[in-house]
Amino acid sequence: MKLNILFSPIVADELYFTGKTSVVIDVLRASSTIITALSNGAKEVVPVATVEFAVKVSGGMFGGQTLLGGERNTKKIEGFALGNSPLEYEEKIVNGKSIIFYTTNGTKALAKAKFSENLFVASFLNLKSVANHLLSLGNNVEIICAGRNNFFSLEDTVCAGMLASEIKKKNKNIELNDSVNSALALNAKFGKDILSMLKLSDHGKLLIENGFEEDLKYCSQLNTHKLIPYYTNGVLKALKNS
Amino acid sequence: MKLNILFSPIVADELYFTGKTSVVIDVLRASSTIITALSNGAKEVVPVATVEFAVKVSGGMFGGQTLLGGERNTKKIEGFALGNSPLEYEEKIVNGKSIIFYTTNGTKALAKAKFSENLFVASFLNLKSVANHLLSLGNNVEIICAGRNNFFSLEDTVCAGMLASEIKKKNKNIELNDSVNSALALNAKFGKDILSMLKLSDHGKLLIENGFEEDLKYCSQLNTHKLIPYYTNGVLKALKNS
Repeated sequence: MKLNILFSPIVADELYFTGKTSVVIDVLRASSTIITALSNGAKEVVPVATVEFAVKVSGGMFGGQTLLGGERNTKKIEGFALGNSPLEYEEKIVNGKSIIFYTTNGTKALAKAKFSENLFVASFLNLKSVANHLLSLGNNVEIICAGRNNFFSLEDTVCAGMLASEIKKKNKNIELNDSVNSALALNAKFGKDILSMLKLSDHGKLLIENGFEEDLKYCSQLNTHKLIPYYTNGVLKALKNS
Repeated sequence: MKLNILFSPIVADELYFTGKTSVVIDVLRASSTIITALSNGAKEVVPVATVEFAVKVSGGMFGGQTLLGGERNTKKIEGFALGNSPLEYEEKIVNGKSIIFYTTNGTKALAKAKFSENLFVASFLNLKSVANHLLSLGNNVEIICAGRNNFFSLEDTVCAGMLASEIKKKNKNIELNDSVNSALALNAKFGKDILSMLKLSDHGKLLIENGFEEDLKYCSQLNTHKLIPYYTNGVLKALKNS
């Protein structure tokens, strides 16, 4: 079982992922929000790569059954029902709904990896659950950090390192490469106090500036969720039994 | 003074570098070889982004004054006088010569950053010299890790982290971001024994397999050279007084 970590979705093209088992990580906040929405009963999350497409897709569905969610540069998009704060995705709001979802980085990473044979979403919230599922599959794994506008982000890398560490604990035969060795080292250095790491991160600072400090606290929670979002036919659903 | 580190040249486009002060790092082996060639009296190194262009450029110059050097997938290119091992670039061979130079990753990183106002080449060999020069300029700095085929490489990142650490020691007001914090942590973890780190790295392992273990020893040397390669009008020359 080999692991590889991409620190930005831009380093590979779409065909790179064909037939692979992949995991997208966007801790702040797309991954955390998708996990929360599905855990709170959303029927599905439909990730879209442009705002225009989000509006188009939602227009074709029955009113009342779909909600537009997401953000551009941390802020809710005009006309959207929901932003990208996981705290907005409460059960009473999302239960039974299809969420059409656009975010600056997370949904682009999902679009990039869409040809994967298996494509999952992870964050600190469901980390152990994802690790166990990957171990049960036994395939090589590509972990894609959503990053920020193609650049590196600390929080996604530390999360990827923690995921690799969790897998490595239970399978000693994991083959490590430069990306995994580095993410493991960054997790060892920054992963002990997730909230402090999020506050140190560039994206965390920006969210605090924009009034989303509570989101950092929420996203720093480890293994509070078992649910694994799974990408199939263009939508994210809860993986069965997860 | 702000620092930023790109872990692959692909994360930014050419115009991103316009007017900036940039440093390209390709420890194994382009940076180390360029520094060595210029230190051993090569008149200039002409980095080219394709093998075809290397052959074309060299054809337009007078025989005897130019040498073709470089590699594709660690091996010397057919018809080239020199490979990409710094040990080949001895004074008696390169003194007074123009080297037309193609490598898989290093020269592509240079081509990407060509619109920089200042563009330097660094490796462990000339690390302190580059740090001091950047401090004397006082500009914000973009450090570009050449990586491998757009992917992350440990040795370039650790070198970038060590460069950032050297700058930070002498200028306490450096602004750090996710990339710099991470490279600093990776330098703290892996930078104490550079040779062991190179042997652990994906690229180092490949070079050892291909018979280049001596190159790892050579490239692991710290601050043996003062010379700073400087990119100007399409060629790399020794920075004056370096």
